[in-house]
Amino acid sequence: MAEFERVVIVGVGLLGGSIGLALRDRNLARTVVGVGRRPESLEKALQRGAVDRAETALDTACQNADLAIICTPVQSVADYVAECQRQMPAGCLITDVGSTKRGICSALDGAQATSFCGSHPLAGSDRSGVDHAAAQLFDDKLTVVTPTSDTPHRLIERTEQFWKALGCRTVRMSPEEHDEAVARTSHLPHLVAAALAKATPVELLPLAASGWCDTTRVAAGNTEMWQQILLENQQPILESLRGFSDALHDWMTALENGNAQLLKELLEAGKAARDSVGN
Amino acid sequence: MAEFERVVIVGVGLLGGSIGLALRDRNLARTVVGVGRRPESLEKALQRGAVDRAETALDTACQNADLAIICTPVQSVADYVAECQRQMPAGCLITDVGSTKRGICSALDGAQATSFCGSHPLAGSDRSGVDHAAAQLFDDKLTVVTPTSDTPHRLIERTEQFWKALGCRTVRMSPEEHDEAVARTSHLPHLVAAALAKATPVELLPLAASGWCDTTRVAAGNTEMWQQILLENQQPILESLRGFSDALHDWMTALENGNAQLLKELLEAGKAARDSVGN
Repeated sequence: MAEFERVVIVGVGLLGGSIGLALRDRNLARTVVGVGRRPESLEKALQRGAVDRAETALDTACQNADLAIICTPVQSVADYVAECQRQMPAGCLITDVGSTKRGICSALDGAQATSFCGSHPLAGSDRSGVDHAAAQLFDDKLTVVTPTSDTPHRLIERTEQFWKALGCRTVRMSPEEHDEAVARTSHLPHLVAAALAKATPVELLPLAASGWCDTTRVAAGNTEMWQQILLENQQPILESLRGFSDALHDWMTALENGNAQLLKELLEAGKAARDSVGN
Repeated sequence: MAEFERVVIVGVGLLGGSIGLALRDRNLARTVVGVGRRPESLEKALQRGAVDRAETALDTACQNADLAIICTPVQSVADYVAECQRQMPAGCLITDVGSTKRGICSALDGAQATSFCGSHPLAGSDRSGVDHAAAQLFDDKLTVVTPTSDTPHRLIERTEQFWKALGCRTVRMSPEEHDEAVARTSHLPHLVAAALAKATPVELLPLAASGWCDTTRVAAGNTEMWQQILLENQQPILESLRGFSDALHDWMTALENGNAQLLKELLEAGKAARDSVGN
């Protein structure tokens, strides 16, 4: 028996498309409706089997829907949530996949978004678009669910159930805690990777080997999406960048002094952190 | 017909083991002799088929050898080259795989190392040891060959032929040019990856997703080897680290000012560099 009657996915790119594929693969929804502005993306989502139906009008899509997931760039999420809330029946659930949460949740604060609970699946790729969507994208990934103090308990649990049904593990954090954490684990690494790629002299790029390729891989990601993320999460990212810049000075001093012992300790601390994560 | 009669590989770890496997796989040598200090590594190399024979004594190994490749940590390469030169017949070739070249080449300067031409295959892994060796490690990789002004032309060409026979492309650079280039394309990325891994608060590591994992992957590498590289190539790495630290300040200023246009330009420059490399 399907867990959801009618699921609306707003934005059928990498994440929206993967949610659609996973829902259909796991038989979790009777109908999956994709909503988007670009007919060619919707057409591709239909062809790939990520959605059963495609709509350009949100109100038509939302009729009788019991779940909506907003998978648009972060700066449009709050507006879509508010619009879905107006169109969907009482008792529905609206969630999202935005990489930053404070802005979205505070924009919705007091907006009667009583059906909304934010979330952020820590799954992605340097590739974007429904072409790269995959039903397995969420397998054993962590999704951060970010209720505010106003979020009804029922919605939090329903949101967690949804992500678990797609294969995720879940953890709860406030929107602020979430944004500070991902500034360090995702946004700073992205900025550093992009800065490193940019800092490499063009004439030396033919010498780039697997180390350079791994370390800079995420810099190939969608620049508009990352511009929005950097602006949305400006303060926590700035703070972690300042901390990282200070940390680089420790390495600089160790190098200047040829301090073999300190270099070894720094390298070993980095290795210990990296080894503890795996993959 | 085998291209080499007797090849000596000093140090049968990831690179030495992979050279042995590639030589045997491609039928390039009549006999491959592995030399090492640790009997258990030599035993593994024999079991994996990376060498035909294992020796702990360099002089025995070098008898009648026409090629030696020194695959030890960089700080012992020059000594092994000099020792091989004493033991091997005239007309032989000695090369190495060290990640830094200025120190090795200047240590050998005037040491009558007339059979030596340095090289550095840009192939590796965050894993070390003969267990992870692979005959395909060099396929389509770039090897930098680093002759000095004293290196006989015949040796340079023979060194290039050797690496091409293993599947590599080759490029020539002076030891100094090489060290400055890899400071930017390999050593700085390693240092940055290790610094980033170390800078991530331990309690947030469960949130580390694919972006963090890619960006920090190389930090899992052998810390002793990297300590040696950082010390050997101290000045070029310091210079590139200072440049990178300055570059991070551009990002910091763009963030502080919420300068959307500048952030976009920085992200796009990073993406352009990354996209141009591939993989």
